[in-house]
Amino acid sequence: MGAEPLFDRLCLIGAGLIGGSIARRARETGAIAREVVVSARSASTLARVRELGFADRVEEDPAQAVEGADCVILCVPVGAYAGVMAQIAPHLKPGAILSDVGSTKGSVLRDLQPLLPEGVHLVPAHPMAGTEFSGPDSGFSALFEGRYTILTPPEGTDPAAIATLREMWHRCGAMIECMDAATHDKVVAIVSHLPHLIAFTICGTADDLSEETRESVLKFAASGFRDFTRIAGSDVAMWRDVFLNNRPAVLEMLARFTEDAQAFGRAIRWGQEDFIVDRIERGRKIRKELIEHKQA
Amino acid sequence: MGAEPLFDRLCLIGAGLIGGSIARRARETGAIAREVVVSARSASTLARVRELGFADRVEEDPAQAVEGADCVILCVPVGAYAGVMAQIAPHLKPGAILSDVGSTKGSVLRDLQPLLPEGVHLVPAHPMAGTEFSGPDSGFSALFEGRYTILTPPEGTDPAAIATLREMWHRCGAMIECMDAATHDKVVAIVSHLPHLIAFTICGTADDLSEETRESVLKFAASGFRDFTRIAGSDVAMWRDVFLNNRPAVLEMLARFTEDAQAFGRAIRWGQEDFIVDRIERGRKIRKELIEHKQA
Repeated sequence: MGAEPLFDRLCLIGAGLIGGSIARRARETGAIAREVVVSARSASTLARVRELGFADRVEEDPAQAVEGADCVILCVPVGAYAGVMAQIAPHLKPGAILSDVGSTKGSVLRDLQPLLPEGVHLVPAHPMAGTEFSGPDSGFSALFEGRYTILTPPEGTDPAAIATLREMWHRCGAMIECMDAATHDKVVAIVSHLPHLIAFTICGTADDLSEETRESVLKFAASGFRDFTRIAGSDVAMWRDVFLNNRPAVLEMLARFTEDAQAFGRAIRWGQEDFIVDRIERGRKIRKELIEHKQA
Repeated sequence: MGAEPLFDRLCLIGAGLIGGSIARRARETGAIAREVVVSARSASTLARVRELGFADRVEEDPAQAVEGADCVILCVPVGAYAGVMAQIAPHLKPGAILSDVGSTKGSVLRDLQPLLPEGVHLVPAHPMAGTEFSGPDSGFSALFEGRYTILTPPEGTDPAAIATLREMWHRCGAMIECMDAATHDKVVAIVSHLPHLIAFTICGTADDLSEETRESVLKFAASGFRDFTRIAGSDVAMWRDVFLNNRPAVLEMLARFTEDAQAFGRAIRWGQEDFIVDRIERGRKIRKELIEHKQA
C-alpha cells in the first residue's frame, strides 16, 4: 500500500476470528503496524498462532505483550475484559490507544475506565463483521471490507486518538461510524443480540419435540429454519458474554418482541385477518428499506 | 426426456410461483402432460400467462379449466380452496387426481373432502420449495429439484393415484415423502410457519423503535437481522392463509417457543451462565445435525 504504518507496535489480546483478522490485515498490508504482538490465554492457541505465523511476536503474558505498544486491542469475549485490564493496566505505555472489538459497549466503559491510566486513550470499537467460525484459523484479512465498524469513544476522548483508530479501521477496509455506547447497545440488541437469542431458542424448542417429529424437523428444515440455524452456529463464550453484558437492552428488546409475537398469536387465534396482513406487509416494507440501504 | 407423458391433460388452478413452475416443468420436459391448462382469477394474471406462453390453454373459469383433466392441482392460497372446490367439484372428471401445493394439509382435507365427487382421488401435496418472489413471472422449471415434496393422502386413498402423483413430483425433480396431515402440520409449524411469524414480528418490533434508533437499525442490520428480513419478504395472501389454516399447530409452537424465550430472558436477567451456555450449545448441536442431514 505504500503508506507509513500507523503504529510502531500493535498488540492484540486474543487471536480468534477478529484478532486473527486484524493481525493478518496488518501483516499483509504493512500499513497498520511495523510490529504485531499477539497474546492469547491458552497454550494451544499460542502454538497455533506461531504455526500460522501472523504475528511478529507471541506472548503468553498479556502484561508483557502490551509493553511499549502504541495501540492495544482487546479481542477476547467481553466477559474477560475486567480481568485482562487488571493485568495490563500498569503496563500500558503513556499515550497509547486502548481499544477493543466487543459487541457490547456500555460494559467496556464499566470494566476498563476505572483502571485506565492517565494519558492512555480509551477508544472502544465494534467491527460489525463475522462468520460462524472462531479460533486462530478462522481469520482472514478481508473480513472487515465494506462492513461497518462503530466507534464509541466516551465524551472528552482525545480527538487525535479517535482519528488514529478511525484510520486504522479505514485501512482494514471498514466504513466507520461514531455513536455513544448506550445507543450502540440498543441498536445491536435489536439487529443482532435478539435475533441470536431467538435462533438459539428455536433450536432448543425443536430439540425438545418428541423423537418422531424431531427427526422430521431435521429432514424438512425449510428455508425459514435454515436461516435460524445459520445464526445459531456461533461461538459459545462470546455469545454468553454478550447476553450477560448487554442485559438491559436485550431484555427490553425481548420484552417488546414478545409482546408483539403474542399479539400476532392472538390475531391468529381469533382470525383477525387485517392484523395479520398488516404485520406481513410491515415485514416486507422493512425488507425493502434494507435493500435500499444495500445491507441485504 | 423420452418418457410418455403421465397425463393427457394437467390443469393448474393458480399461476404463481408454484403453479407457474409446474407448468414450465411440464412444458420443458414433455414428461408430465400432453396439455397444460392454466386458470387464474385475475385478468392481468391471465394476460401475463398468455404472454409468457407456459400454458397450452388459459381459462378464466376454473369449472371449464378442469373439464376433462386427468390431474387438477390447486396452486392458490389455502384460504381460497373451499370457494374454488365449490366451483370445480361438479366438473371434475371421474378417475381424476385432485391435488394441491398448499403449506397446510389438515385444512385441505377439511375444505376439499366434503365436496369430493365419487371416483375422484384426493392426494394433497406440499412441495417444500420457494423463493421470496411470487406471481406468474417468478416460476422456473428447476424450482423443485432436490427439494422435498410431502404427500399427505388420507387413509384409504387409491394406491395407484398416490403412485402417479409421486411420479409427477419425481419428474419435477423432487424427493418425495408421505405422512399424515396432522404430522405434516406440526412439522411445518416449527420449521417454517413459526420462523416466518417471528420474522414478520421482529420487523414490526424494529419498525416501532424511535426514529433515531430505527435509522441505525436499517444502517447496521447485522447478519442476524438480515436473515430474518430475507424470510420476511414473502407473499402476503399466502402467509395470511397459512397462519389462519394451521392455527392449532402454529399456536402450540409459538407457546412452546415463547416459554423457552422467556426462560432465556430470565437466565440473562439473573446471570445464569450455565443455562445460557446450554442453550447456545444446543443451538450449535442442531445446526451440526442439519449439516449432517445436508439440508443446511
